Amino acid sequence: MTKWVYSFGDGSAEGSAEMRTLLGGKGANLAEMSNLGLPVPPGFTVSTEVCTAYYDNDRQYPADLEKQVAAALAKVEETAGAKFGDPDRPLLVSVRSGGRASMPGMMDTVLNLGLNDVTVQGIARNSGNERFAWDSYRRFIQMYSDVVLGVEHHNFEELLDQLKAEKGVAGDTDLDADDLRCLVEMFGALVKRELGRPFPQDVHDQLSGAMGAVFGSWMNQRAITYRRLNNIPGAWGTAVNVQAMVFGNMGDTSATGVAFTRNPSTGEREFFGEFLVNAQGEDVVAGIRTPQHLTREARAHDGSSLLSMEELMPEVFSQLEEIYRSLEAHYRDMQDIEFTVQEGKLWMLQTRSGKRTARAALKIAVGMVEEGLISETEAIKRINPASLDQLLHPTLDPDAIKDILARGLPASPGAACGTVVFNSDEAELLANAGEKVVLVREETSPEDIHGMHAAQGILTSRGGMTSHAAVVARGMGTPCVSGASSVRIDYKNQQFTVMDRVVRKGDVITIDGAKGEVMLGEVAMIQPELSGDFSRLMVWADAARRLKVRANAETPADAQTAREFGAEGIGLCRTEHMFFDAERIVAVREMILADDEAGRRAALAKLLPMQRQDFTDLFRIMHGLPVTVRLLDPPLHEFLPHSEEEIEQVAAAAGADPEKLRRRVASLHEVNPMLGHRGCRLGISYPEIYEMQARAIFEAALDAEAEAGAAVVPEVMVPLVATRRELDIIKERIDSVAEAVRGERGRQLNYLVGTMIELPRAALQAGDIAESAEFFSFGTNDLTQTALGISRDDSGNFLEDYRANGIFEVDPFVSIDQVGVGELVRIACERGRQTKADLKLGICGEHGGDPESIHFFHTVGLDYVSASPYRVPIARLAAAQAALAD
Amino acid sequence: MTKWVYSFGDGSAEGSAEMRTLLGGKGANLAEMSNLGLPVPPGFTVSTEVCTAYYDNDRQYPADLEKQVAAALAKVEETAGAKFGDPDRPLLVSVRSGGRASMPGMMDTVLNLGLNDVTVQGIARNSGNERFAWDSYRRFIQMYSDVVLGVEHHNFEELLDQLKAEKGVAGDTDLDADDLRCLVEMFGALVKRELGRPFPQDVHDQLSGAMGAVFGSWMNQRAITYRRLNNIPGAWGTAVNVQAMVFGNMGDTSATGVAFTRNPSTGEREFFGEFLVNAQGEDVVAGIRTPQHLTREARAHDGSSLLSMEELMPEVFSQLEEIYRSLEAHYRDMQDIEFTVQEGKLWMLQTRSGKRTARAALKIAVGMVEEGLISETEAIKRINPASLDQLLHPTLDPDAIKDILARGLPASPGAACGTVVFNSDEAELLANAGEKVVLVREETSPEDIHGMHAAQGILTSRGGMTSHAAVVARGMGTPCVSGASSVRIDYKNQQFTVMDRVVRKGDVITIDGAKGEVMLGEVAMIQPELSGDFSRLMVWADAARRLKVRANAETPADAQTAREFGAEGIGLCRTEHMFFDAERIVAVREMILADDEAGRRAALAKLLPMQRQDFTDLFRIMHGLPVTVRLLDPPLHEFLPHSEEEIEQVAAAAGADPEKLRRRVASLHEVNPMLGHRGCRLGISYPEIYEMQARAIFEAALDAEAEAGAAVVPEVMVPLVATRRELDIIKERIDSVAEAVRGERGRQLNYLVGTMIELPRAALQAGDIAESAEFFSFGTNDLTQTALGISRDDSGNFLEDYRANGIFEVDPFVSIDQVGVGELVRIACERGRQTKADLKLGICGEHGGDPESIHFFHTVGLDYVSASPYRVPIARLAAAQAALAD
Repeated sequence: MTKWVYSFGDGSAEGSAEMRTLLGGKGANLAEMSNLGLPVPPGFTVSTEVCTAYYDNDRQYPADLEKQVAAALAKVEETAGAKFGDPDRPLLVSVRSGGRASMPGMMDTVLNLGLNDVTVQGIARNSGNERFAWDSYRRFIQMYSDVVLGVEHHNFEELLDQLKAEKGVAGDTDLDADDLRCLVEMFGALVKRELGRPFPQDVHDQLSGAMGAVFGSWMNQRAITYRRLNNIPGAWGTAVNVQAMVFGNMGDTSATGVAFTRNPSTGEREFFGEFLVNAQGEDVVAGIRTPQHLTREARAHDGSSLLSMEELMPEVFSQLEEIYRSLEAHYRDMQDIEFTVQEGKLWMLQTRSGKRTARAALKIAVGMVEEGLISETEAIKRINPASLDQLLHPTLDPDAIKDILARGLPASPGAACGTVVFNSDEAELLANAGEKVVLVREETSPEDIHGMHAAQGILTSRGGMTSHAAVVARGMGTPCVSGASSVRIDYKNQQFTVMDRVVRKGDVITIDGAKGEVMLGEVAMIQPELSGDFSRLMVWADAARRLKVRANAETPADAQTAREFGAEGIGLCRTEHMFFDAERIVAVREMILADDEAGRRAALAKLLPMQRQDFTDLFRIMHGLPVTVRLLDPPLHEFLPHSEEEIEQVAAAAGADPEKLRRRVASLHEVNPMLGHRGCRLGISYPEIYEMQARAIFEAALDAEAEAGAAVVPEVMVPLVATRRELDIIKERIDSVAEAVRGERGRQLNYLVGTMIELPRAALQAGDIAESAEFFSFGTNDLTQTALGISRDDSGNFLEDYRANGIFEVDPFVSIDQVGVGELVRIACERGRQTKADLKLGICGEHGGDPESIHFFHTVGLDYVSASPYRVPIARLAAAQAALAD
Repeated sequence: MTKWVYSFGDGSAEGSAEMRTLLGGKGANLAEMSNLGLPVPPGFTVSTEVCTAYYDNDRQYPADLEKQVAAALAKVEETAGAKFGDPDRPLLVSVRSGGRASMPGMMDTVLNLGLNDVTVQGIARNSGNERFAWDSYRRFIQMYSDVVLGVEHHNFEELLDQLKAEKGVAGDTDLDADDLRCLVEMFGALVKRELGRPFPQDVHDQLSGAMGAVFGSWMNQRAITYRRLNNIPGAWGTAVNVQAMVFGNMGDTSATGVAFTRNPSTGEREFFGEFLVNAQGEDVVAGIRTPQHLTREARAHDGSSLLSMEELMPEVFSQLEEIYRSLEAHYRDMQDIEFTVQEGKLWMLQTRSGKRTARAALKIAVGMVEEGLISETEAIKRINPASLDQLLHPTLDPDAIKDILARGLPASPGAACGTVVFNSDEAELLANAGEKVVLVREETSPEDIHGMHAAQGILTSRGGMTSHAAVVARGMGTPCVSGASSVRIDYKNQQFTVMDRVVRKGDVITIDGAKGEVMLGEVAMIQPELSGDFSRLMVWADAARRLKVRANAETPADAQTAREFGAEGIGLCRTEHMFFDAERIVAVREMILADDEAGRRAALAKLLPMQRQDFTDLFRIMHGLPVTVRLLDPPLHEFLPHSEEEIEQVAAAAGADPEKLRRRVASLHEVNPMLGHRGCRLGISYPEIYEMQARAIFEAALDAEAEAGAAVVPEVMVPLVATRRELDIIKERIDSVAEAVRGERGRQLNYLVGTMIELPRAALQAGDIAESAEFFSFGTNDLTQTALGISRDDSGNFLEDYRANGIFEVDPFVSIDQVGVGELVRIACERGRQTKADLKLGICGEHGGDPESIHFFHTVGLDYVSASPYRVPIARLAAAQAALAD
């Protein structure tokens, strides 16, 4: 017989903290506290398996559940010395949800259950407090009717207001027992009128109704939405906790409160929380009365006139202090606790790991290591890698007043403030003149790189989390809000509107790239502080991880940032980014427009010294570390103008025939450029392009080597390979360029030639391709696009529908699709290593900075991940966590 | 020790016909004829392994080759009773290439080898014919110098012409022995002048030089090109055949000839060929003298005044007759033979399987079954499935005079003739008025379907073998030449030009879609004749195959054709093709422009009766056979106008706001539509579209069932599925539509719901997807695009570079890439069937009509292939061949 129900209380429990999956967080911790001998009101937990069985079985409970509940209830009655539904000593209970993961406020709760027209008298007698009894009853009817019976809350509030008006009083507390008894009658009549049947008087009916409502609330819309947003599987289900009521509202020796064992904002080691005398938990939440501090010190710091608990109830406080210390020591983590004091007796109602800011998390983790409470390994595991982003960027002052203008996607974290500009040239101009600007575009393209570099922040009205703007901004560490669709940009008039508000060029805005908010005016900011805690944690992480972490970078500035953030090399230098520079694009276009190979070679000869200098800089900055340079990847038309106006301009500037330019633009036009004439296909059609690049790389390697006095070993990476033959052809040419450079310079030259694995065919044929490749670097962006058949640039039109329908739990461009794209990676690793056991394996797609994906890459045995510079610390930590999870 | 050399002649041989791989076709058959006791001049074959070793080993011969050649040569000397280089009885030899596959005229040959200033005298003495001796010598110098020494042919021709002019004679035969001796001296001097060394006098040097030239010619450009065009692997190598010379030019009792054992054009059972008295083989090829018929009957039929061989050399002829009959019986196939008669003695120089037209191949195969020579199984194997295309379409009269204007790709076979029109509306108008038209477009789009249907043939100046025009034309069975890039279309002036020739609207052109030729004016045609032979072969093929063959069709006309060609159902009905019809596109656009679901539903309600009627027609025509209907697949923007002008027109016609239309066009624009908001993604975003289609299918099934009196079981196919959840969501909706229709009609309704497997992820996740799918249909077009990362529409820009570089042996859109895309198909089959053993598996991409691919699909265990109607017979035959190859 399955055990569905687990009792707790009275210094022992059938469950424990380890049984979180079965009992939910709240139930497991109530059991644990009982086992620790802490004062917990007796109760029992109906397990999450009941929830699962309930939904699997067409909303029917397991057959033997009723019997088990009855037995557990009997035990509670015994411990509490009261009986459920008994007229003389009635037991009242609370019914609360509690899943594996916290879903605050998402699900339903019923308090004071067990009251009816008879038991209310018993409560009145036993408490000697008639008002308390009737007040509890009217609250119960109100709550139960709302949650279980579906009679909305406001109906009751109206009656309450009406009664107060009749009595001429303002507060609920001004109503006396008789008033409340009268109110209970009115509530009863209301329920009967609304539902056609009276409010349930049978306490067991009440209990099963409440349990049904809690299980039912698992599938309500807000719970489903919350789970989707927080990646909580629906299959987990919730548990139900039924627990004897204790009352913080039985007079001035009663109270209720919540506390954190450390400061959840700063991580400081101080008892932090608040309480209310003569109140129930819901009163704290409702915020009608001002809560009081717990400690004398906090009260002093705040200058409050209200006494602290330490002062008001010193004995209870010292008991609480002892308990919180023991809980922290026991759980070895900062706890978020709830307690109630009933007539001077302390009851613990909840303990759980407390939520905290990134800053606090770091301080607490490092602090606990110092205190000997946890190991370095545990400290590493405690920090959510993604949260480090907050620590590396300026953030808005949480106390600042914000005039939120629009919301978009949190595309690149950090806060930025500046005057609005609408084009990249102007952004650069103003920035050079010392002005701080925010670049506002419908979307950005590679031609905006200089403007993006110049801007403090970027705002786009289109595009997703992986749009050009988002990807490039994250790479640069520049705050960005993308896809703010309510922002309508009017380039002609140099302004944008949000509803009826107009923002003109030169107006100041602030963006919060971590939240996706756009604010009018300047909002106060807090600068990041890479404290000693951060460095210490990183040292521990580096010692724990197996995966190396490199950075995707092509500019000296990015390379420098990457190195400072601990990158162990460059995993992806996108050479095309170097082609958009104003002085280069002219030569690039000359190359594209050339009539023959000779013409192309002449244009490429102009590019050679510039490319060589780029690489020399990179090699110098990264000295001693590997640098992977990807040969030209995008289709050539990306370098040409597109609109008629641009064509005229470019032709005029270059002294070229606009008609010829137009024809070339037309002939290079592609229906699906992502799947077009790009990557190594360019190297096959125009060998001279890759030859120039190979030469630039090799000459730069020798130049940098001469400067640094240490050998530089560049890794030349061929993109978009589908067949081994492509790589063979291109590798042969690279090798002859190397041979030529060796001859010219009379120097040794070592390098690796490898390939991107970014097409499904390449992954499947990895065994063959590995014959010719010295390394693989997974381009999981393109691999995701091809394996799923989804264009990243176009996915905005339907990805939201897909998430809403539960088709994708997360955006597959943010976190790798492990069973689809991931299987291709796994296959390629296996087959590649089968051919060449020491094949170097890395990944340079956006997923290289995503903790979930990094975990996966660790598991499949990659050698390194490469992420944008600002994500390097995140990757270091995630890699350590992955290694520790082994 | 490896055996490199194989002797033959004198009634026996070391090789045989089975050793074709090692000895090449020619060598193997010379050995076989020797073994059969036929008169074959003695000789030996240097195996293809020598060629492979030669190239693998930096153009060095194997060490022991020389010894083996010497031994074989000694054997030839013994048999021939002559000695190589001997002054008195000199042996002369021919040196010929001979690979596994015939490469006619691609490689080099040297005759009369062994002649030098000394041996020429011996030949003169022994033959008693001094002129013959010197003529042979001058021919040898000319041929050897050209082939081996690289002194070009024309140098010698000039001297010959000069000599003839001096002597005042016209023909070579007018030169006497002295003239020729003089010519030999002049040739010798020429060689010495050109090369700085004399013509080689050592006969062994001559031999090794000639062998080297033959091996070398394996890698000459024209041989490489030929192999690429004919898919012959370079690794096969060629053999070299060295054989004692026999002479057909030793007087009137000597002769040389070629013959086929049956008529290679018609397949009639008649000895067919020609011969020349007193001539060498090259004279027949040169065409200087008119050859004579072999048989009396053929001479009579031709009315020739020249005697036939049967009349002129009755004994030799009857010996030849006996030999050809025994060869055909031995090889059990029509033979192409070469022979020489030297002074009354018949020598066989070659036999091989004869090339034949598709028509002849069919007649010979069926005829040989009737004659008991081969089995039905062998007959099936004998026919190249692709050649059937020729039999199903009109072809140009081979004797007609053609004024070829341009060449393009042979995109859809058959010949067509008509007046030129440049747009689809006009094509339809003229065709309705009874005019035959050829539609000429830069490229076609779905909006041209009606014009393509109306036209006799289609000519495009852009696009490849798998462009829209090519695919659709093949599907319709309409002849098409695509990508004729020399055709420059000037829509404005309604004309096209090819170089300086202008063709105007209304001019008549003829196209040959099998050859890719475009001709000015009308060219005579031969209508196809689906003779009894064709039907008989198809009956045998159907009995042999395991794979079912369905057709891709959506119009009643196509369905009818498919059924007549033996399709066993429809494997792909593309519903979107039905949306482009003039009366429907209005409702489709109304749907796309609607502001909300209600608006879309209203527009879809207008489409419902039309779609229902489409399906009713299809179900009626295909009664008793399965019909797979694919739900809407292309992105919605395909149904909207794109140019500013079209937008204005469409908006005006629909009474809609052009600005709104423009906005919608812009918002639906996609960077990579192939990977965009299409397929089941539309069904997720706009459930009402698929609901309408499901309803149309189900109502039509019941309507057709009522008409036909037999149950119709439609197969509803969901496109572009990447995850099981997509299919689950859509299947649930389809099921509820079916439930609704059942309720409304009060009738039983059976159907299957399945999915396309056309994304790599779907193939990998096939095990999971099969939980929800009742069938899979592989969309290998899209699977090729995604697995290889190649947009079919854009591949024209680089596929040619790829073929030239040997990266793709064949266009992967024509024949499936077995190791890449094919592995995905294989994985999906395995995983799908693991989940659901009886999962129905088919393929509906273009590869379904490609014999190589069909073979692969048979091997991986698909249930059926689906091809365009005109390729159904090809698929039936290919499927049979695949089954027989098991």
